[in-house]
Amino acid sequence: MSERGLSAPRRRRGRPRGGATDARERILDAAVAEFEAQGYDAATIRSIAARADVDAALVHHYFGSKADLFTAVIDAPMQPARILPELLDGDLDTAGERLARFLVDLWEQPDFRRRGIAVMRAMMGSKRTAGILVGFVSREILRRITTRLGGGDEARRRAGLVASQIVGLIVTRYVLELPPIAEATPDEVVAAVGPTLQRYLTGELTG
Amino acid sequence: MSERGLSAPRRRRGRPRGGATDARERILDAAVAEFEAQGYDAATIRSIAARADVDAALVHHYFGSKADLFTAVIDAPMQPARILPELLDGDLDTAGERLARFLVDLWEQPDFRRRGIAVMRAMMGSKRTAGILVGFVSREILRRITTRLGGGDEARRRAGLVASQIVGLIVTRYVLELPPIAEATPDEVVAAVGPTLQRYLTGELTG
Repeated sequence: MSERGLSAPRRRRGRPRGGATDARERILDAAVAEFEAQGYDAATIRSIAARADVDAALVHHYFGSKADLFTAVIDAPMQPARILPELLDGDLDTAGERLARFLVDLWEQPDFRRRGIAVMRAMMGSKRTAGILVGFVSREILRRITTRLGGGDEARRRAGLVASQIVGLIVTRYVLELPPIAEATPDEVVAAVGPTLQRYLTGELTG
Repeated sequence: MSERGLSAPRRRRGRPRGGATDARERILDAAVAEFEAQGYDAATIRSIAARADVDAALVHHYFGSKADLFTAVIDAPMQPARILPELLDGDLDTAGERLARFLVDLWEQPDFRRRGIAVMRAMMGSKRTAGILVGFVSREILRRITTRLGGGDEARRRAGLVASQIVGLIVTRYVLELPPIAEATPDEVVAAVGPTLQRYLTGELTG
């Protein structure tokens, strides 16, 4: 049964709330919560709609399929990556520290962190969603760094190494909350990880 | 209904196979496959038993609860961590490269990689399993490195940084197979990541 294309979706219960923007945000929040709690495969449009207190038809109306909705959920944490070219502009010899500072500042924000963790959890738990995330990271992060480094195989490899440390920092500090790295101050993390990113961007890599 | 404690579990179908060791290994393999395919929460003792072609009672008999079985599945990928003290013994100034080489050699083995990926996927997908994994990593990896570095807060922090790069390498190269890092040769990875681990172990961290 297709529930798409209904022109006047009704909320199933609850008092009337704000307009379309409000409902859209509530659906996104509910999707984050469901993907995090159930994982991608077990979460359904229906369970997300129930959590958001809207009709399933409204979810389809705004976001299309479950995969489309997941893409929208990923999109918010990836938005900041769009400013990467700006961040990498200027002196390349200090870009490692700027990048580390930017990442830590971003992930220290509770709202960002909550959605980012849900995305990381959901995408790691399933091959399908891992593919969606790899596409995003390749497009939004790797390609921008590769371009800034002038393109080519070595630049690509450097971007991949940068990603390995960034992803590792996010997973251990924010997703797993592994004590010694989760307990470090933002300044300590930037001081420790910045030079690693810098070496991957511009340093000697062949040992 | 409890199915534990049955003394003579029967296989449900299929020809008789090897002894207890064989059945135990088949159950572990099936658990790896189920945890990877379904995630921890959706996988059941029943679905794992069906995949292994044994009675659910036999799974309970060998492994107890689903959490116990997951712990057993984690245990194999964590076994090599037990040789960490040996690996870290000797010259601490070259331990970063030895550690990078050891990790890459291990994860390049298909059997190890398959089980390791299943564990990473399953544990990231659920808060419950993430807790089990954090316990293992803390005990088996962080504590050994901290001890080798002489203990104390700075040693703990160094161990946490080592974990951030190791986990990031495993996630990007083996689990997500992010192209530029997945396509690098083992030697390239060791040459690039070894010095990072070395700096986290013994280098300057305060910028």
